[in-house]
Amino acid sequence: MRATIMYDAGDVRVENVPDTRIVKPTDAVIRITYASICGSDLWPYRGYDEFPENGLPMGHEAIGVVEEIGLDVRKIKVGDVVAMPFAYSDGTCIHCREGIHTSCIHGGFFGSPDVGGAQAEAIRIPQADGTLVVLSGSMDDAIMPSLLTLTDVMATGHHAAVTANVAPGKTVAVVGDGAVGLCGVIAAQRLGAGQIIIMGRHADRIALARAFGATDVVSERGEEAWEHVRKLTNGLGVHSVLECVGSDQSMDTALNIARPGGAIGRVGVPHDVTIPAATPTFFKNLTISGGPAPVRAYIEDLIPDVLDGKIQPGRVFDRVVGLNEVPDGYRAMDNREAIKVMVKM
Amino acid sequence: MRATIMYDAGDVRVENVPDTRIVKPTDAVIRITYASICGSDLWPYRGYDEFPENGLPMGHEAIGVVEEIGLDVRKIKVGDVVAMPFAYSDGTCIHCREGIHTSCIHGGFFGSPDVGGAQAEAIRIPQADGTLVVLSGSMDDAIMPSLLTLTDVMATGHHAAVTANVAPGKTVAVVGDGAVGLCGVIAAQRLGAGQIIIMGRHADRIALARAFGATDVVSERGEEAWEHVRKLTNGLGVHSVLECVGSDQSMDTALNIARPGGAIGRVGVPHDVTIPAATPTFFKNLTISGGPAPVRAYIEDLIPDVLDGKIQPGRVFDRVVGLNEVPDGYRAMDNREAIKVMVKM
Repeated sequence: MRATIMYDAGDVRVENVPDTRIVKPTDAVIRITYASICGSDLWPYRGYDEFPENGLPMGHEAIGVVEEIGLDVRKIKVGDVVAMPFAYSDGTCIHCREGIHTSCIHGGFFGSPDVGGAQAEAIRIPQADGTLVVLSGSMDDAIMPSLLTLTDVMATGHHAAVTANVAPGKTVAVVGDGAVGLCGVIAAQRLGAGQIIIMGRHADRIALARAFGATDVVSERGEEAWEHVRKLTNGLGVHSVLECVGSDQSMDTALNIARPGGAIGRVGVPHDVTIPAATPTFFKNLTISGGPAPVRAYIEDLIPDVLDGKIQPGRVFDRVVGLNEVPDGYRAMDNREAIKVMVKM
Repeated sequence: MRATIMYDAGDVRVENVPDTRIVKPTDAVIRITYASICGSDLWPYRGYDEFPENGLPMGHEAIGVVEEIGLDVRKIKVGDVVAMPFAYSDGTCIHCREGIHTSCIHGGFFGSPDVGGAQAEAIRIPQADGTLVVLSGSMDDAIMPSLLTLTDVMATGHHAAVTANVAPGKTVAVVGDGAVGLCGVIAAQRLGAGQIIIMGRHADRIALARAFGATDVVSERGEEAWEHVRKLTNGLGVHSVLECVGSDQSMDTALNIARPGGAIGRVGVPHDVTIPAATPTFFKNLTISGGPAPVRAYIEDLIPDVLDGKIQPGRVFDRVVGLNEVPDGYRAMDNREAIKVMVKM
């Protein structure tokens, strides 16, 4: 089968690899119909991560059709149309029951050497019963991009909003105008935020953020950005910051625009980030929360809002490629020619 | 009047200073009847902090009698018996209304050069109407130590428990067996925790922790302590950690004994603490919260429990001194001869 492998920074290839197959009786194999390229895929592409010896299988967001199931799979049937969250999880361990599926005792992450990646024709799904979400009802092509975002980027924006304690009437800032930040705007709006400040500088993304419910735009950086946020919030700062980047500068901004007692929900995988222990975190009574989104804990609540058209996170996709064009998709996202790239098989 | 001034590490003196007086029309002056020495007073005593040129007036926990009020004071009357939280606050600004009185726009902290300290015969109270809490009803001597703890240490333990999301049935660990940690045990028990692990090694403190509701004791340090906590929690770690020390080791312990999705409520003023941004904080979806306790937000809820005898935080005092013996009180706390010292005028 064809699959996407990254060998080094900037070196991503679509190659023939051995067909994926059932390894454990709790596995399923799905034929992928839609996948996407994630902002987090750009970290290794830009040389921030180490590579395994035989390259890194890429892709962890997908919708597909179940092709084969292991002997112990009970809930998932061959032929089901399913969404695949970026982490697999059994759904029954204590961490899953407490809603932290990304820490499942029998769990792990897609886009790794042991399970492979989703920017491919097919993928093996460990813990298929716990991991996969069957999509039923009208599977109109127009709705598929939005459903696809629920496997990562929209659920991740939601996680940022939840862990930043977004609540009705609260003031919110979203750091980062990438696809996760834009979904963070949707999530904040959905949870009733009274003011949503998008922090970013790309006209197309800002326009989309406004369409999603952003009320204000801050395009400066560093201390000028903090000042602008304070000006927009009567000098107070915001109740909730959705930190959707993961850089030291974005965290620094988040900590400095949060008001006393405020919360930062961070979902950008941290790269060389420093969290100061005393000022402003401790003395302002800030809460720092977040992490890899437990997609499986949220997705069943989010699906109806997509099916009803209440939220349209699929609008973050502004380019569609076929599997063989995936390397060009990386290039386009890296250059910021595209916000987010969908891969249609 | 007599007041306690610290000039350098280990150099604390009770001296004659000019009588305190009303400076602003929103001030009151109280004659102190009970004060105490705080664990945080030991940071400068041990040389961790800088000293102002004319020394640092010490003490920020007190009960007293109102002696004089400014022209704009409305709620507080001369003769009222009052509790003085360690921070002053107007009670009306946005941060006070949001429950973060320690960030009051017109607020500040006692035990500072501009307002003086409470280990003294009298102290000036800025924002008297917002700051002071009138104590009414039976003012039995036996209840005073417990009421005194509400001005800092018990409210601080409560803040650790609240910010660590302690809730009925949850597993809790308290890092530190000082007076704040012991009050953290009371707070966790009061909020319904199912398991309370005290982490400490002093027999007298452990005994008190058990009397306050601790169910388990972990006396090891470092990785051995983490292992012990995991053993006590089916290998999972705890839902809530009350970090009541403020050292790098105590934070490291807190982060490593929290289970995925767990929360750390930190109330020990951080000294040379590093918070790692990625592992375990981000990948375990930990929440780090806490800061200086907004005593004023909690104290009116805690007073009835003290008056009803439901909680007895005053038991953390195991030594009583007069004002002139305050330096000996510091020595006793520094040597761990005393858990916490009350100053009775």
